[in-house]
Amino acid sequence: MKFPSHHVEKAVESLAKLPGIGKRTALRLALHLLKRDETDVEMLGNSLIDMRNQTMYCNICKNISDTETCDICNDTSRNQHIICVVEDVRDVMAIENTMQYKGRYHVLGGIISPIEGVGPGDLHLDSLFQRIQQQDIEEVFMALPTTIEGDTTIFYIYKNIKDSGVKVSTIARGVSVGNELEFTDEITLGRSIINRVPYTYDEED
Amino acid sequence: MKFPSHHVEKAVESLAKLPGIGKRTALRLALHLLKRDETDVEMLGNSLIDMRNQTMYCNICKNISDTETCDICNDTSRNQHIICVVEDVRDVMAIENTMQYKGRYHVLGGIISPIEGVGPGDLHLDSLFQRIQQQDIEEVFMALPTTIEGDTTIFYIYKNIKDSGVKVSTIARGVSVGNELEFTDEITLGRSIINRVPYTYDEED
Repeated sequence: MKFPSHHVEKAVESLAKLPGIGKRTALRLALHLLKRDETDVEMLGNSLIDMRNQTMYCNICKNISDTETCDICNDTSRNQHIICVVEDVRDVMAIENTMQYKGRYHVLGGIISPIEGVGPGDLHLDSLFQRIQQQDIEEVFMALPTTIEGDTTIFYIYKNIKDSGVKVSTIARGVSVGNELEFTDEITLGRSIINRVPYTYDEED
Repeated sequence: MKFPSHHVEKAVESLAKLPGIGKRTALRLALHLLKRDETDVEMLGNSLIDMRNQTMYCNICKNISDTETCDICNDTSRNQHIICVVEDVRDVMAIENTMQYKGRYHVLGGIISPIEGVGPGDLHLDSLFQRIQQQDIEEVFMALPTTIEGDTTIFYIYKNIKDSGVKVSTIARGVSVGNELEFTDEITLGRSIINRVPYTYDEED
């Protein structure tokens, strides 16, 4: 592809390195930016550079943060004795959005996946085990993907901490709220039968 | 959505303003950039800003360019007497890639589309009519989309230049190379029958 402008070519090449963005999409984005206000494009470019240079990882839970210790770890009103183990930052945001969890987190930065070449050494596991040893932790709550990789990671962590006497829990797996039973896959339905829960009736509902 | 970092939030907001990129994709891109080298991200951010600030539009054909007059208009070995009228920069690149056209271009910056509120006044039409009047133009070659909007734009231009005695041509419409006749839509097939061309046999093929 021959570009009529060297500047456009450079921008397209940089954009095309982003995941899921090919050369065609990159060109479309570049031509769109050419039509936008200069201040808009400066804001975009600088916001990416600022983010990369100034975002830190929390020294306790490894979540992204503007400060050395993140807002969640700094919040003394939250339960300090429970750690929710998640794959990445997006899971923290998803769980926070439910407003159903008021403990702390530990962001692994991935899950064990031999296929993708991710081993335990690539994850923030040592810092998790240290937290469990040194701090007064009562429960480790695994909110990892319900996949083979997720299950493998849960098992690996469990093996390493089972002697510490800490309670280990995982998120409930079952039929999604609003889903028909007949369209639920067999494994999920099977598990949701094995793990059936006592019926409670909440007057407020 | 509550972000753990203000810098990430700002980057996501800027990215989500790009066409076809929603909040989720923007977050995925931002988290990807956090893992990349600082120099990589600086290159991306600065390439976007540089492109916006330094790319010009050719003063003759309105194509994007690093200089006041673009490389194609500056190339004296190209035919100066034929103008290929296109919708945007991508069409110039597509036609250049075929290596079948050695004249100049005129980039309209859009096509007439009442539905999208684009009228003749929004396009680089006056400069096209000026070029046809003032320069020694023999042929105006319309390489516009084969849609109602494209046809409308071709008709509008034709109406305005038909008294100048300039030859007006359009790209050939017909069955795509490699396509089966039975799967070609009726209108295309019909036109390709009306506009059938003399058979020539090229020994070199």
